[in-house]
Amino acid sequence: MKLSEFKLIELLAKKLPTLPPEVTVGIGDDTAVIKKDEGYLLLTSDALVEGSHFLKEWKEKLNNFYYYLGRKLLSISLSDIASMGGIPEYAIVNIGLSEKTETEEMEELYEGLADCCREFSVTVVGGDTVSSKTEFFDVTLTGKCKNFMLRSEAKPGELVAVTGTFGDSRAGLEILKGKGKEDNYLLERFLNPIPRVKEGVEARNLGVKCGTDVSDGLVFNLYTIANSSNVSIHIEGEKIPISRELLNFVGNSEIALNYALFGGEDYELIITLPENLQDKVESLGFKVIGEVKEGTGVFLDGERLPEKGYDHFKT
Amino acid sequence: MKLSEFKLIELLAKKLPTLPPEVTVGIGDDTAVIKKDEGYLLLTSDALVEGSHFLKEWKEKLNNFYYYLGRKLLSISLSDIASMGGIPEYAIVNIGLSEKTETEEMEELYEGLADCCREFSVTVVGGDTVSSKTEFFDVTLTGKCKNFMLRSEAKPGELVAVTGTFGDSRAGLEILKGKGKEDNYLLERFLNPIPRVKEGVEARNLGVKCGTDVSDGLVFNLYTIANSSNVSIHIEGEKIPISRELLNFVGNSEIALNYALFGGEDYELIITLPENLQDKVESLGFKVIGEVKEGTGVFLDGERLPEKGYDHFKT
Repeated sequence: MKLSEFKLIELLAKKLPTLPPEVTVGIGDDTAVIKKDEGYLLLTSDALVEGSHFLKEWKEKLNNFYYYLGRKLLSISLSDIASMGGIPEYAIVNIGLSEKTETEEMEELYEGLADCCREFSVTVVGGDTVSSKTEFFDVTLTGKCKNFMLRSEAKPGELVAVTGTFGDSRAGLEILKGKGKEDNYLLERFLNPIPRVKEGVEARNLGVKCGTDVSDGLVFNLYTIANSSNVSIHIEGEKIPISRELLNFVGNSEIALNYALFGGEDYELIITLPENLQDKVESLGFKVIGEVKEGTGVFLDGERLPEKGYDHFKT
Repeated sequence: MKLSEFKLIELLAKKLPTLPPEVTVGIGDDTAVIKKDEGYLLLTSDALVEGSHFLKEWKEKLNNFYYYLGRKLLSISLSDIASMGGIPEYAIVNIGLSEKTETEEMEELYEGLADCCREFSVTVVGGDTVSSKTEFFDVTLTGKCKNFMLRSEAKPGELVAVTGTFGDSRAGLEILKGKGKEDNYLLERFLNPIPRVKEGVEARNLGVKCGTDVSDGLVFNLYTIANSSNVSIHIEGEKIPISRELLNFVGNSEIALNYALFGGEDYELIITLPENLQDKVESLGFKVIGEVKEGTGVFLDGERLPEKGYDHFKT
């Protein structure tokens, strides 16, 4: 397959029938949004595939690796629901089992999944189990909301704010791949991202209209907002939240900033907000990192950044 | 993996939190059923995996193979919604692309999917596209209904009725695998099953309470009704609908009956009904093949049948 995933989706989506009016958001945002009698139904799906998103050999490095994989499988879809300000509800779980899959691994995966379900009040209601030469797992998650945030709602004059710290997940992945010194915090940030469901709902309740989550890298996902809102975004390097652990891992703040900007799989939220909401969103744990202006592109301290993101983990 | 898929699902389901009261049917029936303000939300998912459900080399035998695969991908989930008497609504499509996947194949797949969407008024609203060493596709489909049929509602004294003919799909698969003489009708029955959505809705509207679809084989799926309803089912060999094409393909009626009983992937419906509904369900195209009694097991002309089904296509 020579086309990028984004180009392919664009090509394929054109073949589908036009959307009926109740489908408020179809292919292209973090989740689909469908108008229902009361409020909206949200639908999203994410897959984790052996060789692309994880390696079976990581089990050797980490006793409870499949437990974490089960958590992450749900968390990455929870993050999509969070980015719309939605409340997650029901999950369908598909598993593709290879000849090498062991029953104990699947039990561990389901323990992680079940714990994550309890923490976020999600109910697994079904799924399909099939044989596959490559192990894969995917979750389709439903959610609900009365109102929602979109990537396309950023307005010039607004501030840009984020949850958490950036770049940790990429460092955690490098540790798993045997690069750099062990650090449990960074490992956990890759294996066990905490979806910002509460923050998403609260931001939306304050009246925030624009949001997305950072799966492909901070800059890449800022570009998704800038492009779909027809605005430019200007961030300040010294305001990007970076953990002490990442600084220690890479050794200097310049490299740490590069990890934060282009790392990916952070599963933090980005929102844009009118200035008068700044204090309130800060009290929810968001940090302002820049502002929205007219124009196009994403700029760091005045310099235009390349529209590149996390290149899905190649083995 | 040594456990059967059914045993594994049973083991894993136990790890999950108990179902909240609005989840009327969780893991274990054809679709999940969730009580909503008005009526019910149905959720189901099915996957098609290279090497398990299809071979890439079938493309050489059939020009538009991926078109059919796209149709089938949606049809098998539509059949699950049909088996509950539901109306399908929205689909999430995940695709796992291998290095061998060609853009043209995915375009063809989406053309088939799009045609099937048009025929059954389904809207694709999203999905995930990932890299995988093994090509795989899955669809999660939502549906709605005011009332639904379940496997567990068969009552002694009722009749057993089915749509369509049985065993054709297995013969079609054998033709694809190079066994037996070519027959377009049988090939099409494997590649392009027609989900019985209309028949499911109409049966349910007549008041039919018990239904399922035949994915794993007629006998196997009769057992799912018998076991979950705590009844026995008695069918008559000469009433099992068998196509002329299947008879021609296998050469005699005894072998044809074996294909019909244990073939699998027919995607026809089985319902049970009180006798006073017989004329009405027959006018919908159902044929009565037997009756429900007290006891356990599935019997053909008085003889107990083995509880075996379609063993997922092994390559």
